[in-house]
Amino acid sequence: MATITIALDAMGGDQGLAVVVPAAAQALTKSPELRLILVGDQTQIEAYMRRHSITTNERLQIHHASEQVSMDELPSHALRNKKDSSMRVAINLVSEGKAQACVSAGNTGALMVTARFVLKTLPGIDRPAISSVLPGVNGGVRVLDLGANVDCKAEHLFQFAVMGSVLAEFVDGKANPKIALLNIGAEDMKGNEQVKQTAQLLSAADFINYIGYMESDDIFFKDVDVVVCDGFVGNVALKTMEGTAKVIASFIKSAFEKTWLTRLMAIPAMQVLNALKKEIDPSAYNGASFVGLPGTVIKSHGGTNVLGFTNAIHEAVLAVKNDVPQQIRQRIANLLQDK
Amino acid sequence: MATITIALDAMGGDQGLAVVVPAAAQALTKSPELRLILVGDQTQIEAYMRRHSITTNERLQIHHASEQVSMDELPSHALRNKKDSSMRVAINLVSEGKAQACVSAGNTGALMVTARFVLKTLPGIDRPAISSVLPGVNGGVRVLDLGANVDCKAEHLFQFAVMGSVLAEFVDGKANPKIALLNIGAEDMKGNEQVKQTAQLLSAADFINYIGYMESDDIFFKDVDVVVCDGFVGNVALKTMEGTAKVIASFIKSAFEKTWLTRLMAIPAMQVLNALKKEIDPSAYNGASFVGLPGTVIKSHGGTNVLGFTNAIHEAVLAVKNDVPQQIRQRIANLLQDK
Repeated sequence: MATITIALDAMGGDQGLAVVVPAAAQALTKSPELRLILVGDQTQIEAYMRRHSITTNERLQIHHASEQVSMDELPSHALRNKKDSSMRVAINLVSEGKAQACVSAGNTGALMVTARFVLKTLPGIDRPAISSVLPGVNGGVRVLDLGANVDCKAEHLFQFAVMGSVLAEFVDGKANPKIALLNIGAEDMKGNEQVKQTAQLLSAADFINYIGYMESDDIFFKDVDVVVCDGFVGNVALKTMEGTAKVIASFIKSAFEKTWLTRLMAIPAMQVLNALKKEIDPSAYNGASFVGLPGTVIKSHGGTNVLGFTNAIHEAVLAVKNDVPQQIRQRIANLLQDK
Repeated sequence: MATITIALDAMGGDQGLAVVVPAAAQALTKSPELRLILVGDQTQIEAYMRRHSITTNERLQIHHASEQVSMDELPSHALRNKKDSSMRVAINLVSEGKAQACVSAGNTGALMVTARFVLKTLPGIDRPAISSVLPGVNGGVRVLDLGANVDCKAEHLFQFAVMGSVLAEFVDGKANPKIALLNIGAEDMKGNEQVKQTAQLLSAADFINYIGYMESDDIFFKDVDVVVCDGFVGNVALKTMEGTAKVIASFIKSAFEKTWLTRLMAIPAMQVLNALKKEIDPSAYNGASFVGLPGTVIKSHGGTNVLGFTNAIHEAVLAVKNDVPQQIRQRIANLLQDK
């Protein structure tokens, strides 16, 4: 069994060590081939581990890094000034071949800028993208780009489709994955120039199973594996989902709090609704892939819990096991050769 | 009391007459100053009215139109070939001064293209926009553009802000309305070129109460009156809300259907959830304004019910009473003068 080594940004995210260290311990029990490197302030990590009776060993190491990128720091500032940040050092370990992947719950923009600067993009890929699986009635759909790239051209969306197709096949286990393009109508004449041009490129690419346009109210319902969009649009869609779910939850709560009778009704109902909440728990879907880089970089949600960070580590394991960067490199190389 | 005359596309929408005629009768009982013209196939309208014991009178007239635009018809086809459609004739009545507004539940694209062709845009307005009020914890927020314009430039978004500001003030009754720009981050450096340039224009306009960027997960929560965005982005956000609400409803339904115990719990819970459903009923928010035209054109949701169409008529009444087109014309004229 080949070992898989993953560097964790131990200081990243809203809760830092309190989430990353327990998640690391948990992930190790799940995957026997896994080795983890906790990157961050050695003294703090050791103190935390001591308090929680976790010890370093061959599979769980500490790598010291003296600085930390804050959640609201400007990415350019982090890149220029935090050369020994836990985030940067974790990415360096990937670049140096000491780890095959890194996982961070830190500042998304800083992670993207730093990963791109340190690792560079794969040949033929102009821009790395952020991709994540969203829940749906058909088991989940992969969406990219979720916010790394705004002002995309059709060629960029086309590259996202190629990368999404690889992720769906090798990480999500979908054979011949169905690729759709996010649009504001299903008819050919609908959409902006960017989308129309991308549709032409995708229709002409016979190695992509392009099924056409999709509207965003269908994301949860349609039998499709990958949805491709500009990062601005994808980020708006993602945050609209979060906002809508939050406002519905708050409406439900106040509906049950209206009178003593509805409060009484709430007691059994809340059991069901809480079970449901657990089932569609966003931490189950935690772990966004940065794709288009020669190494695997996974971004965990900043506010995630131990389960969520464990899932993000698992996402990294899957990407490494299936050698996603190499698959993308190969697919793009074939594409460039065909031209 | 000045009378208000509104032309209704009686054949439009999924249910046509069965929704429009009862809604017309209901709207007349609510607004004594109102006069309505049912535009469509005279024989069919008369037959429907006879069956439902509704009679024409001074306040409820029929205007014959021999054709009908179907819901999936290409807008360009409707514009070229359906010169006597109920939709086109209703808009003609506005253009001829025989009605001050028209309301249609028909094909959105055809309605927009026809309204723009027949009425032209106001001087200084390049493109009409679609605007609607979305529910929120602070009572609702007006969003535009919701899909009329893709590939917008900053000047277009700026015009949307001016028009949205007028709607918020004169239709929604908000003094000095707060205008936000939809973006994928709250920081200055975030966003695409379109948004960054629009922010500069809005910051420089002292007659607009511009409060900065807003992310789409804040739409329901933030104290803001108008959210401005490109029509592609706005349409994606709107449909994402619809899809998210639908998928949550289906998850709740199946959570309660799991076992006999949860089914039992569902009985009282459903009472509360149904009351909630009524409260956040989309028909209560029905009626999207087409703004930037010299007349008032209101688009009702195609699948709406009688209550929803009545609300769309009410939206038209408000726009006419407050002379929204004239207010926008004035605001834009001042703006052009200042240049």
